[in-house]
Amino acid sequence: MSLLLSEIADRIGSKLTGRDCKITNVADITQATTGQLTFINHAKYLDALKQTSASAVILKPSWLEVCPVPALVTDNPRLLFARAAILLNPDNRDTSGISKLAVVAENADIHASVIIEDHAVIRSGCRLHENVYVGAGCVVEENVTIGNNTRIYANVTIQQNCYIGGDCIIHSGVIIGTDGFGFIRDGDAYLKIPQLGNVYISNNVEIGANTTIDRGALLDTIIHEGVKLDNQIQVAHNVEIGRHTIISACTCIAGSAKIGEYCLIGGGVGIRDNIEIGDNVVVTGRTFVSSSIKAQGTYSSSVLVDTTSSWKKNVMRFKHLDDMEKRIKKLEQKN
Amino acid sequence: MSLLLSEIADRIGSKLTGRDCKITNVADITQATTGQLTFINHAKYLDALKQTSASAVILKPSWLEVCPVPALVTDNPRLLFARAAILLNPDNRDTSGISKLAVVAENADIHASVIIEDHAVIRSGCRLHENVYVGAGCVVEENVTIGNNTRIYANVTIQQNCYIGGDCIIHSGVIIGTDGFGFIRDGDAYLKIPQLGNVYISNNVEIGANTTIDRGALLDTIIHEGVKLDNQIQVAHNVEIGRHTIISACTCIAGSAKIGEYCLIGGGVGIRDNIEIGDNVVVTGRTFVSSSIKAQGTYSSSVLVDTTSSWKKNVMRFKHLDDMEKRIKKLEQKN
Amino acid sequence: MSLLLSEIADRIGSKLTGRDCKITNVADITQATTGQLTFINHAKYLDALKQTSASAVILKPSWLEVCPVPALVTDNPRLLFARAAILLNPDNRDTSGISKLAVVAENADIHASVIIEDHAVIRSGCRLHENVYVGAGCVVEENVTIGNNTRIYANVTIQQNCYIGGDCIIHSGVIIGTDGFGFIRDGDAYLKIPQLGNVYISNNVEIGANTTIDRGALLDTIIHEGVKLDNQIQVAHNVEIGRHTIISACTCIAGSAKIGEYCLIGGGVGIRDNIEIGDNVVVTGRTFVSSSIKAQGTYSSSVLVDTTSSWKKNVMRFKHLDDMEKRIKKLEQKN
Repeated sequence: MSLLLSEIADRIGSKLTGRDCKITNVADITQATTGQLTFINHAKYLDALKQTSASAVILKPSWLEVCPVPALVTDNPRLLFARAAILLNPDNRDTSGISKLAVVAENADIHASVIIEDHAVIRSGCRLHENVYVGAGCVVEENVTIGNNTRIYANVTIQQNCYIGGDCIIHSGVIIGTDGFGFIRDGDAYLKIPQLGNVYISNNVEIGANTTIDRGALLDTIIHEGVKLDNQIQVAHNVEIGRHTIISACTCIAGSAKIGEYCLIGGGVGIRDNIEIGDNVVVTGRTFVSSSIKAQGTYSSSVLVDTTSSWKKNVMRFKHLDDMEKRIKKLEQKN
Repeated sequence: MSLLLSEIADRIGSKLTGRDCKITNVADITQATTGQLTFINHAKYLDALKQTSASAVILKPSWLEVCPVPALVTDNPRLLFARAAILLNPDNRDTSGISKLAVVAENADIHASVIIEDHAVIRSGCRLHENVYVGAGCVVEENVTIGNNTRIYANVTIQQNCYIGGDCIIHSGVIIGTDGFGFIRDGDAYLKIPQLGNVYISNNVEIGANTTIDRGALLDTIIHEGVKLDNQIQVAHNVEIGRHTIISACTCIAGSAKIGEYCLIGGGVGIRDNIEIGDNVVVTGRTFVSSSIKAQGTYSSSVLVDTTSSWKKNVMRFKHLDDMEKRIKKLEQKN
Repeated sequence: MSLLLSEIADRIGSKLTGRDCKITNVADITQATTGQLTFINHAKYLDALKQTSASAVILKPSWLEVCPVPALVTDNPRLLFARAAILLNPDNRDTSGISKLAVVAENADIHASVIIEDHAVIRSGCRLHENVYVGAGCVVEENVTIGNNTRIYANVTIQQNCYIGGDCIIHSGVIIGTDGFGFIRDGDAYLKIPQLGNVYISNNVEIGANTTIDRGALLDTIIHEGVKLDNQIQVAHNVEIGRHTIISACTCIAGSAKIGEYCLIGGGVGIRDNIEIGDNVVVTGRTFVSSSIKAQGTYSSSVLVDTTSSWKKNVMRFKHLDDMEKRIKKLEQKN
């Protein structure tokens, strides 16, 4: 693929400073060479900029004077670089149609533009809309709907009756719609509570590798528009995640937790069952959201790394914090 | 499916108050409509109860007077609702037999009632007993035994020589019997210690999506009867989990840990290698079980969420707890 | 398989004390019987040693006098036992060649010795070198290279353009090369930043079940020689892991973190994005590596388990640590 730099400038919303040239792709500032467009986002890369072999650079206005090559100027280089990278890397997998080695139920409703790869299985009652891509080895059980342009990579499993919107990306190993974890003591054993709800995923959602999303118990588990989930996230039954919320890897969301819109949740976070997180909340990595968070703001609860020898002495005191507080109070009363 | 309310009452162990009627399924109190049976478990739903469109409700005796529809009375509405939900939702997947697209080794011993879906692979020496279900894309390696009525959903992998009992449910993406993590330093590199044990899973065990259970090093990894494991749990080699213990999602159990019977282990818990947890122990979510727990009771170790600004000031003090204790002691000696 | 004990002694680098005999396999000290070789590594097993039914034992010189059977003497019984276990358990899966039910692109370059199991998919441009094994249901997308003797177990997914070295073991459910988690706010929504780097995995790397390794954003994610990753580890985009580093299960490594050589990272650890860990660093289980670690040594940050009643009193004080410090300071000033 090749585009004129001036055309890229137009299409990503920037303006070209310097000579026009052909651009074939984007690259990192440390590796970009002839034909490649790069960007810098921080002054610490100015030395690299001065020596770049890239054909063009996206940068902030103040860095223009030291730039030895044509430049696209913007206040948000990372955003414009992302737009350029998308332009120059259209999805061009050279497959089309339904593999003869896929299994598609007779009564499944599959748009003519859909691609289904080898050994994928699409069960009866499924509806796959325009330009849906289903990778090799995927299993889509009965009555699943998948919206326009959604891409489902290899070895994904979607259980019956789930709904997935348009323009979604589901990465490999994702499991959607397995039973929520519901049991009730019945004499000496536990009885399984049937999980009869579904999973509803709106448009423009991305779900990372090996993430699991359980179906609801009676009502649905709901992922709203624009949500981005990283790898190995667990979404329990009846969770609801608001629009454009972003959640990093290995976060575990317990049953019926409700998360607001435009939240940023770090990696390795634990979110307790049945709590509520408001809109625009930021939770830093490794936090345990042990109770509801109503006010917008940033929240934390991790403990920071130390040498083990120092940590050993301090961590033992954790079990005596209450005692320490009482000793302080006693001293205060005496003084 | 449709049953008379009176018949449901008989079969779940309740008694009907009010007129008999036809019930087609269960539903949540907020959504239940004609033909549906719902339940309430808490007085906060009494307003919803008064306005319900359900055909019948399972509830406690004291709520009967405000119930506008026929009722099934019990002291444990959730349990009886679970029983009714099971009655009204029999497993009725309309498949049978072995898919022509499955691979079943000639010498595998497969009961006539077994269902094996498309692209599943069953290797030589496997024994699949009555009514076993194996979903699409599952791979069951050599000499695996699977007991009566066990259901293995799509895209599960079971390595060689593992044993799985009857009435189990194994959800999609589960990996059973991969090598435990054993290496020993040998000069400048690490040598792999062959993992020669197996995985033994007893009856009535449920295993959640993408959970991994390693085979033992020499002896077996053992999951006893009635254990319920949620999604994305890691069970390392030579772990043993006692009967009817329930473990929530994302819990990580290190090698040779031994967990007792009827324990309740929360989500995101870490259990150290080679420790022992007794029977009837409750561990709250996000706890690190850093040492053995012998006495029955409830255990914790998480830190609770705070605003980041407050947390920042406090977390820095954690590294000086020992120093703080000594300063208190010094003050006490002076006073 | 059967070897003479004297031959085993020669090949693992030990010397035989006692009569020679035939050995068919290794076993645990509590279960070893005739024909089996066992080992002890700790004096607590001396009673078991005295009563062993094993045909031979690997042990330290000082334990020789109470050993009732032939012995192989060494200062490192575990290492020599591992070597013997490898000798006696050669990989002897009785398959060969490419299954007729696998899909292999015409222009893929597959060495004659490669084994590809049922329903595996190998896309165009892939290069599989000598003795590579690809299990059932694996999907290997375009232009992936896999080195000599590497074994990829069932239901693994490898995305396009990734490189995997020789003598690697990739366990079931592993996902390599999915998109890193990169988004940038664009008006009211988030724009996906194309992930254009690859994953580079060197020789002799082992990767545990359901572990996920993302491709780099622009540069590559790199796993160096001899690295061992346990199950359910998350390796984000542009992470680099140094030679012979060992990482236990459920550890989550955020983007662009760089880990040195010969590190030992415990289970359930969180490693923050963009930080650096030096060589020979040990991180204990459940630690949050919240900042870079330069000096060799052992590091921790977990909180230890307590009864919930005691924990409740103490954990509430965590939010007042800074206040407690100030109260102590005030008392000190008065005294």
